[in-house]
Amino acid sequence: METHFKSWAEVAPRLVAVAAGREKADLVIRGGKLVNVQTREILDGWQVAVAEGRFAYVGPDASHCIGPDTRVIEADGRYLIPGLCDGHMHIESGMLTPAEFAAAVIPHGTTTMFTDPHEIANVLGLRGVRMMHDEALMQPVNIYTQMPSCAPSAPGLETTGFEISAADVAEAMAWPGIIGLGEMMNFPGVINGDPQMLAEMAATMNAGKTVGGHYASPDKGVAFSAYVAGGAADDHEGTAEADALARVRNGMRSMMRLGSAWYDVESQITAVTEKGLDPRNFILCTDDCHSGTLVNEGHMNRVVRHAIACGCDPVIALQMATINTATHFGLERELGSIAPGRRADMILTSDLVTLPIEEVIARGQTVARDGKITVTCPHYAWPDDARKTVHMGKVLGDADFAIHAPEGKNKVKAKVIGVVENQAPTQALTAELPVVNGLVEGEGDTYQIALVERHQGTGKVVNGFVSGFGYTGKMAMASTVAHDSHHMIVVGTDRAMMAAAANRLGEVGGGVTVWKDGAELALVELPIAGLMSDSPAAEVAGKADQMVAAMAACGCTLNNAYMQHSLLALVVIPSLRISDLGLVDVDKFEITDIFEENA
Amino acid sequence: METHFKSWAEVAPRLVAVAAGREKADLVIRGGKLVNVQTREILDGWQVAVAEGRFAYVGPDASHCIGPDTRVIEADGRYLIPGLCDGHMHIESGMLTPAEFAAAVIPHGTTTMFTDPHEIANVLGLRGVRMMHDEALMQPVNIYTQMPSCAPSAPGLETTGFEISAADVAEAMAWPGIIGLGEMMNFPGVINGDPQMLAEMAATMNAGKTVGGHYASPDKGVAFSAYVAGGAADDHEGTAEADALARVRNGMRSMMRLGSAWYDVESQITAVTEKGLDPRNFILCTDDCHSGTLVNEGHMNRVVRHAIACGCDPVIALQMATINTATHFGLERELGSIAPGRRADMILTSDLVTLPIEEVIARGQTVARDGKITVTCPHYAWPDDARKTVHMGKVLGDADFAIHAPEGKNKVKAKVIGVVENQAPTQALTAELPVVNGLVEGEGDTYQIALVERHQGTGKVVNGFVSGFGYTGKMAMASTVAHDSHHMIVVGTDRAMMAAAANRLGEVGGGVTVWKDGAELALVELPIAGLMSDSPAAEVAGKADQMVAAMAACGCTLNNAYMQHSLLALVVIPSLRISDLGLVDVDKFEITDIFEENA
Repeated sequence: METHFKSWAEVAPRLVAVAAGREKADLVIRGGKLVNVQTREILDGWQVAVAEGRFAYVGPDASHCIGPDTRVIEADGRYLIPGLCDGHMHIESGMLTPAEFAAAVIPHGTTTMFTDPHEIANVLGLRGVRMMHDEALMQPVNIYTQMPSCAPSAPGLETTGFEISAADVAEAMAWPGIIGLGEMMNFPGVINGDPQMLAEMAATMNAGKTVGGHYASPDKGVAFSAYVAGGAADDHEGTAEADALARVRNGMRSMMRLGSAWYDVESQITAVTEKGLDPRNFILCTDDCHSGTLVNEGHMNRVVRHAIACGCDPVIALQMATINTATHFGLERELGSIAPGRRADMILTSDLVTLPIEEVIARGQTVARDGKITVTCPHYAWPDDARKTVHMGKVLGDADFAIHAPEGKNKVKAKVIGVVENQAPTQALTAELPVVNGLVEGEGDTYQIALVERHQGTGKVVNGFVSGFGYTGKMAMASTVAHDSHHMIVVGTDRAMMAAAANRLGEVGGGVTVWKDGAELALVELPIAGLMSDSPAAEVAGKADQMVAAMAACGCTLNNAYMQHSLLALVVIPSLRISDLGLVDVDKFEITDIFEENA
Repeated sequence: METHFKSWAEVAPRLVAVAAGREKADLVIRGGKLVNVQTREILDGWQVAVAEGRFAYVGPDASHCIGPDTRVIEADGRYLIPGLCDGHMHIESGMLTPAEFAAAVIPHGTTTMFTDPHEIANVLGLRGVRMMHDEALMQPVNIYTQMPSCAPSAPGLETTGFEISAADVAEAMAWPGIIGLGEMMNFPGVINGDPQMLAEMAATMNAGKTVGGHYASPDKGVAFSAYVAGGAADDHEGTAEADALARVRNGMRSMMRLGSAWYDVESQITAVTEKGLDPRNFILCTDDCHSGTLVNEGHMNRVVRHAIACGCDPVIALQMATINTATHFGLERELGSIAPGRRADMILTSDLVTLPIEEVIARGQTVARDGKITVTCPHYAWPDDARKTVHMGKVLGDADFAIHAPEGKNKVKAKVIGVVENQAPTQALTAELPVVNGLVEGEGDTYQIALVERHQGTGKVVNGFVSGFGYTGKMAMASTVAHDSHHMIVVGTDRAMMAAAANRLGEVGGGVTVWKDGAELALVELPIAGLMSDSPAAEVAGKADQMVAAMAACGCTLNNAYMQHSLLALVVIPSLRISDLGLVDVDKFEITDIFEENA
C-alpha cells in the first residue's frame, strides 16, 4: 500500500534532461521571490522547474524547461519557501491517525514530520508502530517514523500492553520509513549505563540513524554530560535559554517546541537572537498538538510565526523549520530546501512575517490552497485488533471503585494526587477523608481516580484520590488516552457514574467520555488503539470542544484539564501518579499505599 | 592490517561512565579556551575529558573525570580547536604514499582528509585504489577515501592502465573507508546524460554517500544547472565569487581551495565576508599540495590562516575546515568538533590568527608537538606489482623519438603545445620547423615532447612539439607523473637524451629525471605506481627542489614548470595535449595530426 517515491538517483537522468532543456518540466513556478535557506538569502525572480516530484532546475530563468504540458504557476511576487518540517512530534497527541493528522496540517504548510508513535507502541507494540509507519508512508507528504525507545516508560511501575525491546529497535531500523530512535526518555537509565537503553541507541547509531533525546531535568551538570555521552543527538525538553546553550555547546541540536501546551521557544530562542549563537543547531518542533490547535491555530506555521514574533529573523526562523531539521536527520539532500534534486515541497506566501499559507506543494503536486486540502490522504486498513483494544474483562460496577477504609476507621488520612493549573507535574497532597459504611469518600475538591486495566482484560481497577479539577455534583470522566501505558483513567465524584463512563469506553473501543447526573455529556470516540480517530480533525476537534465544555459543566475550572486528566498515569513525571500496579510515588520511583500510615 | 577504531556506539558505555565520573578519563585538558565550532563561540575555561579516543566530557569542569592514571594537559590559556579537515585532496600530488603524506601534515594540525586516489586508479585500477584505501586506514589520523569516478578522464582520447567502471564504484561503496565518489570531472558526460556517469553517481547515492563534484567551466547557465541536477554535492573548481554563489544557491557545498598552485579562496570567500551568506556551506580544501609546500608552508593550517588573512572571522574560517566538512560527509557526529562522542582530534594553539600548531592530538593521543610528529605512520606492504609499474617493453633509442617529415619536405608547419606561465591550459600554437635528414627538428624555444606508453609495455612512443619552457642546450626531462593516465612524458631538445631519461625511469620504476649534456642532474624516485615515494616528505621535497634547480639549469624560466610538464597529457584541459593515441585537440575533443595540412 505504501507509495514508492522515486529517489534522486532513480530520476537523475530525467532531472538532468529537464535542467538541460532536452525534456520538459511537469511544473514551473516563476515571478516569485525564492527564499534560499541554504544561503539565507531572498532571490528575487528566481524560478523553479519540477519533474518527478523533485526540483530539476532552480535559477533565474526556467523558460527552457517549459513545454506544452508543463503547468506554470505565476507567483505574482509572492515568496516561495520550502515546505515546513516538524522536527519532533507525536501524531497520537492530535487524537488522529497519521492520514487525518496529515490532512489537518497540510493546509498549514507542513510537508515533513518526524514522528514518534510512542503511544501506540504501549498499546500494540512493534506491530502498532509498523501500522503507523505504514500509514505514514502512504501520505502525499513526508512522515518519517522515529522508533519508540521506552515502552514501558517506567519498568516496574506499570504494565504496558506491549513492551519494546532492543531487538525490536534493531529490527525496525531496517524499515523504509524509520529515521531514527524516538526520544530516549529514560535518561536516568542512560546516565546509569542501563544496557537496554545503550543497546537501543547503539542499534540506531550502527544503522547510521539519529538518536532522539529527552532529558527532562534542570540539572545541566554531570548528569547531563553523562546523558549526552550516550549518543542522543537532540533534545526538545529544554525550557530556558541555559538549557538550549548546554545542548548546542555539547554538539546536540536544540529542538524548541511550541505545542498546544508547550511554550519553549520564547524562553530559548534568545540563544540566537540575543547571544548570537550560530543558528544551525536550532530546530523548531511541536511535540504535541491537539486537534483543536490544528484546526484553529495552525501547526509549524504557528511555530515559525511565533519564533519571528520572538524577534528571530524570518529566514533564520525558516531555516530552523526546514534545512536545519533536514540536516539533523541526514536528509539535507532529500528535502528542506529549494534546490535541485530535493523533493519539491514548497509554499507560496505573500508575507514572511505573518506567513499566510496560500498554496502548498508537496512533491511537485499542489496539496492545499487557501487553507483547503486538495488531495486525499489515504487510510491504512487498520485491522480489527487495532480497533478493539479496550479489553475490560467484565462490566464494571460501583463496587469496583469502592475504597475500603482500614478496619475500624471512621476517617482516614489519604494521599491525594494534586493537579496543578497549566503544569504537567502533580503535587503529592494528603487529605483527611470521611469513612461511610466502611468506604472512604471524597470530600470537597477531592474525589476518586481509578486506573482500569484495559490491555489484558484482567478487570483490575486501582483506586485512589485526586484533587484540583474543581468538579462538583455527580460526575465522572474516563479516558483511554492515559499516558504512557494507556490503560483507562477514570475520575469521578460518583462511583456508579465512574463505572458507567468506564463501561461506555469499553463499548465504543476507547476515547474520552464525560458524564454528569447519570447522562453522557460528551464522547470523543478514539477507536484506533483507544488513542486515535480516523475521522477528520475538525470533527474530532468539535467533539473535543464538547468534552471541554462538559468538563466545565461538571465544575472544572482548569484551563487545559484534558491534558491534566490524561497525564495522571504518567509515572515518570513527579510527584504522585497512578498505575495499574498502584499509587506511584514518582519522587521515590516506587509504589506507595493510598493511606498515610495509621493517620 | 587496518586499525579498527571503535565506534561511538561501541564505547558509549565507557563514555557515559567517564562523563558521570564512575570511571576515569585517559586524558583531560584544562585551563584553555575551547573554540566551539557548533555554536561559533569561544568558551573560556572549558575542559575536555577523553576516553577510548573520543570526547567523553566537554564542559566547565572535568575534575570528576580525573583519576590516578589520567594524563592531564594544562593548556595554559591556549585555544583548543578541532583538528583540521581537508575536504578534498589527492595524496598522490604530494608524491608521497598516504603514510608519508600523513606524517607530513600531522604536525600542521590536519587530522582528517578526504582523498581521491584518482591517479593510482589510472595506473592500477580498483586494486590500486584499495591499496591506498588500506594504507589510509592504518594511519593515526582519519583518511577517508573518495572512490575515483573517471578513469579514463577522456574515453577515446587516451588509454589508461586500468579503467574504472560503474560496477567498480558500486563495489567500493561497501569498503570501510569509502566516504563517497571522487570528483565527477566528466561534466559534459553528466550534462549529456552519460549512463555510466549517472550509474556511478546513483551507486554512491544509493549507498547514502557523498558525490564529489568537479565542474570546470565558467558557464553558470543551463549546463551548470544540468550538472547539479545529476547529484554532485560539492565543487572545488570555482575560481570567482560568482562561482561560489552559484554553487551554494543550488544546494551544493562550495569547496574553496588553496593548493600549491591553486589560489581560489581569496576570490570566493567574499561570498561570506562581503555578501554575508550563511557560511555553513563553505568548505576549505587543498586539492593538490606538493611535498615542498607541506614541508615549508603547511597544509590546512596554511589554508585557514589564508582565509583569515582574506578577512574571514577566525572561528568561521575554522568552521569551514572542521564542522562544515564533517557535516558535508555525514560525519558531524563522528568528528569535526569538540563535543561528546566525537573523535578526540584537536589542536592547542596560542593564537587564532597566526595559528601556530603547538600540539596536535588525534583520537586522544598526542601525534605532534612543536612541528614534530610524535607517532609513526605505518606503511602498507605495497606488493611488487605496485612497485614495478613502468613497463617500457624495450630499451628506447633516439630513433624512437624521430619525427619523420612528410616525403620531400625540407620544412614543415607543425602544431606545437604552448605552455603558459602559471596556467594549466595550453595554447595550440604552430611553428615552421626545419627538416634535417628527413627528420623534423625543433628550433629556438620549440623542442620535442613524447608520450611513452608504460602500462602495457608496447614500446609505443607518440611524438610531438612543445614550447614555452625556455629550454636551451642538450637536455631532456621525463616523468611518469603524467596526468591523468600517467604514461610517461618526455620533453627534450635532444633525442638521445630523451631516450636516456625515459630508460632511466624504466630502471628505477618511475619518477622524474632531468638530464643535461648526457648526465642526470636530478632524479626523484617514485617507485609506488610511478607516482609516489614512501620516503619522508622532507627527502622527497629535497629531491624535488633539485629537480626544479635542474630544470632551471636547462634554461627553464617558468615558475612552476614541473606542474606544467606533468599536465601536458591531461587531455581534458584545453587546448592542445598529447596522449598515447596521438596529439589531442582538446577544444574539439579529437586526435589531430602533428602537421598542419600541407603547410
